Amino acid sequence: MEKVREIVREGRRVGKEDPRRVVHAFKVGLALAFVSSFYYYQPLYDNFGVNAMWAVMTVVVVFEFSVGATLGKGINRAVATLVAGGLGIGAHHLASLSGPTIEPILLAIFVFVQAALSTFVRFFPRVKARYDYGILIFILTFSLISVSGFREDEILDLAHKRLSTVIMGGVSCVLISIFVCPVWAGQDLHSLLASNLDTLSHFLQEFGDEYFEATDDGDINEVEKRRKNLERYKSVLNSKSNEEALANFAKWEPRHGQFRFRHPWQQYLAVAALLRQCAYRIDALNSYLNSDFQIPMDIKKKLEEPLRRMSSESAKSMKEMSISLKKMTKLSSSDIHVLNSQSACKALSTLLKSGILNNVEPLQLISLTTTVSLLVDIVNLTEKISESVHELASAARFKNKMKPTASLKKSDSVSVGRAAVPIKSHDSDDHVVTILCDDDVSNTVDQWRGKSSVDSCHHVAIKIDDDDSVHEKHEDGEIHVHTSCDSCGPTNASNVLDSSSNKRISSN
Amino acid sequence: MEKVREIVREGRRVGKEDPRRVVHAFKVGLALAFVSSFYYYQPLYDNFGVNAMWAVMTVVVVFEFSVGATLGKGINRAVATLVAGGLGIGAHHLASLSGPTIEPILLAIFVFVQAALSTFVRFFPRVKARYDYGILIFILTFSLISVSGFREDEILDLAHKRLSTVIMGGVSCVLISIFVCPVWAGQDLHSLLASNLDTLSHFLQEFGDEYFEATDDGDINEVEKRRKNLERYKSVLNSKSNEEALANFAKWEPRHGQFRFRHPWQQYLAVAALLRQCAYRIDALNSYLNSDFQIPMDIKKKLEEPLRRMSSESAKSMKEMSISLKKMTKLSSSDIHVLNSQSACKALSTLLKSGILNNVEPLQLISLTTTVSLLVDIVNLTEKISESVHELASAARFKNKMKPTASLKKSDSVSVGRAAVPIKSHDSDDHVVTILCDDDVSNTVDQWRGKSSVDSCHHVAIKIDDDDSVHEKHEDGEIHVHTSCDSCGPTNASNVLDSSSNKRISSN
Repeated sequence: MEKVREIVREGRRVGKEDPRRVVHAFKVGLALAFVSSFYYYQPLYDNFGVNAMWAVMTVVVVFEFSVGATLGKGINRAVATLVAGGLGIGAHHLASLSGPTIEPILLAIFVFVQAALSTFVRFFPRVKARYDYGILIFILTFSLISVSGFREDEILDLAHKRLSTVIMGGVSCVLISIFVCPVWAGQDLHSLLASNLDTLSHFLQEFGDEYFEATDDGDINEVEKRRKNLERYKSVLNSKSNEEALANFAKWEPRHGQFRFRHPWQQYLAVAALLRQCAYRIDALNSYLNSDFQIPMDIKKKLEEPLRRMSSESAKSMKEMSISLKKMTKLSSSDIHVLNSQSACKALSTLLKSGILNNVEPLQLISLTTTVSLLVDIVNLTEKISESVHELASAARFKNKMKPTASLKKSDSVSVGRAAVPIKSHDSDDHVVTILCDDDVSNTVDQWRGKSSVDSCHHVAIKIDDDDSVHEKHEDGEIHVHTSCDSCGPTNASNVLDSSSNKRISSN
Repeated sequence: MEKVREIVREGRRVGKEDPRRVVHAFKVGLALAFVSSFYYYQPLYDNFGVNAMWAVMTVVVVFEFSVGATLGKGINRAVATLVAGGLGIGAHHLASLSGPTIEPILLAIFVFVQAALSTFVRFFPRVKARYDYGILIFILTFSLISVSGFREDEILDLAHKRLSTVIMGGVSCVLISIFVCPVWAGQDLHSLLASNLDTLSHFLQEFGDEYFEATDDGDINEVEKRRKNLERYKSVLNSKSNEEALANFAKWEPRHGQFRFRHPWQQYLAVAALLRQCAYRIDALNSYLNSDFQIPMDIKKKLEEPLRRMSSESAKSMKEMSISLKKMTKLSSSDIHVLNSQSACKALSTLLKSGILNNVEPLQLISLTTTVSLLVDIVNLTEKISESVHELASAARFKNKMKPTASLKKSDSVSVGRAAVPIKSHDSDDHVVTILCDDDVSNTVDQWRGKSSVDSCHHVAIKIDDDDSVHEKHEDGEIHVHTSCDSCGPTNASNVLDSSSNKRISSN
């Protein structure tokens, strides 16, 4: 009884985790009840007889959770049945010419050779990813047809019936899976990427508060809940196999929603790989949050401003990317946040050079600088991720979100203030005004961007995010956010912090 | 033509990567040729007729690469066929009682309900891991039998024949897969773990040279080759899904070689998870090796001795674990290496406290301290891995390797020298003498071990590794290497380095 209750509880949990699972179960039931009606419906049964079972069998093995997986298996099965059926009949014919003694030996050799060859081909990585099931069915059908002891006209009839029932079963699966509450693997991969970005962004957004505010250990439940929420990023660490499977399925899917047939799924994997790298760093950072050894707050506070800005600006940039993915629009202000986070790095570097940490105890210093270095890594990775999402956006032809409406003169912007660091008037999500305005800044930016070669151009970037509409204006040159970053080698703290010193030793 | 040549090349590569794949292909061909002989062999064909095809089908879908996977699928298929056959006959009987009009409706409902329920159950994580295939076959068989339009005596005959052919096919697969060059998933998992340990150990072993020796960039091929060899650790980063699959298969396998039926496969996954964590750190460390920004050698050299010792001792400890796994003997000297690496941490901490880095430029400091912190993390993780391997060794009842032969008096050891740090006479692999000998050391060790409560006991540990035999002697107390480390929270640099200061703030 306890066992039963536990199973029901588990069932409820599984269903709640993804309600589409319940729908999928109903869809399979429906498809199966439908094809098994071939047995009762006399005209169909008269035509196909026992072969109707192939339709049932096809539905059971082909119907998968997502449209892509179902289509992939269905197409694999249909094509493999067709090809193997043809070859099987050929082999049977060839063997039957050789007389009754040699025939079984010849057939056994045929079966052995094709089974061994096909099985070996299944190990090829590219074949395994997309055609594994097809080859399985190829082996199966070839063996069944070539060795079946029937006369040839019987075989043709058999092959014909089997193929038609397989196709009927496959088509029912595909139709039901596409038209009854479809689950698109592509959409899933897309959402997974957006939600992974969101998760990492959430951690970085909260990091400042967690690191710089003394925990009052008030409500243990509350703390526990916040911690759990913070550690959602752990799901990103091991998402690789899931993402690869989804991308493989997605490649089979036809146009749906905003996804074309040849949507750049491979680019999703590239972004996902960078996100995973970022998650590794976040995992390390998290271990410093939970550590028994805590640095006195007054020492931490010395670096609070730039560190907070680095993590929060990276977080905003990722959040922006996540939203841009969800809405399938091109990135607008994410680059500005990347620049902001990089200018915070710069500020941090200046602060460190000023000798602010000279009197810190070595052990505390190590803990603190490691945190710094991890955050710098994360800022670097955020830039790479941003570039990768840009590539994705243009490869996938995301809509352009920008509508240039406002007009601003250079003199206006300069009058606002000469700032060495981008200024933000607000931290809230709407009405963000970011200004990069004079030579000083453009030099800084150039340094951050590596080998960008435009000297002293003037940037004006104004973003007023209101009612979801963005107005941007660039003057006297372009914003450098789309230059490719050919100097980002391995993400490395000192690498970036060192942008102004010339101690680089070339790595070639 | 070019295409064909490419395929042949790919085939050769795949075969070379794991020659057992070629053998597997032959085995499948053999099994299939064998069961298809049921068709030609008249007495068998007279008995089973067309049902012989179920044997062929079973072989094609059940025969997997490893014994565990084959057994798992075979048992799943046989049991599911049996149970579903029984239930299907029951459903058919029930429906036939209700008269010809209601019968098809009732059958459709049965099929719908069982298919929907079973499909939903396939989403349960534990079911998915081990019984996914069984449930698939359950749905298939139940549907086929309950709706087949046969009379009941025909059905019984059919079910009997189908079950016997399925079992014949399954048994052929299992026998061939066990007795012809068997591939044991358990053995694979075991070797994978040992080789992962080896890979990480190799990186750590080479790290000192890579980090502290100026690369002369002489032969590019040579450098490239060394780099590639060093970066083998990357395979560990994403090994999770592979390890879990192997562990799942391994659970189906009977006793083989030194593996019992209930070998603690779950513990392998625990060790593997720690290794992955360690690999994340190594990945970060590697990015510092490849970085454009290099710290001047004279600054690095200041910390060379302890850093080299930390990485090389961790490497030795892992190497030892890898060998112990391969030979399935209990760990002997790995703990000593762990202690050595920890004492190197301690030396490092003393060195840092002495203010050796006071005049280092902040940017260089950050890069250097991050390397330090990552190495300390790795030392900590090595200890955890060592403990986890200890647990594995005792759960899996590995043989005891120790043969106490030498005898040493306490006075002897003290006369060797009062050392605050374990001494090693050699760096080569044989004739290693490690001595922990007086109060001072035992205190140090106690500190490293966290809350170990034995006051001032005297350790003498002598290991002379010659001809693969190890002689150890403990006197006046025990070596503390097996105490559980209840103070290892999150692996955190300062945590360990801080063992002597009392600035810890409890994290509860």
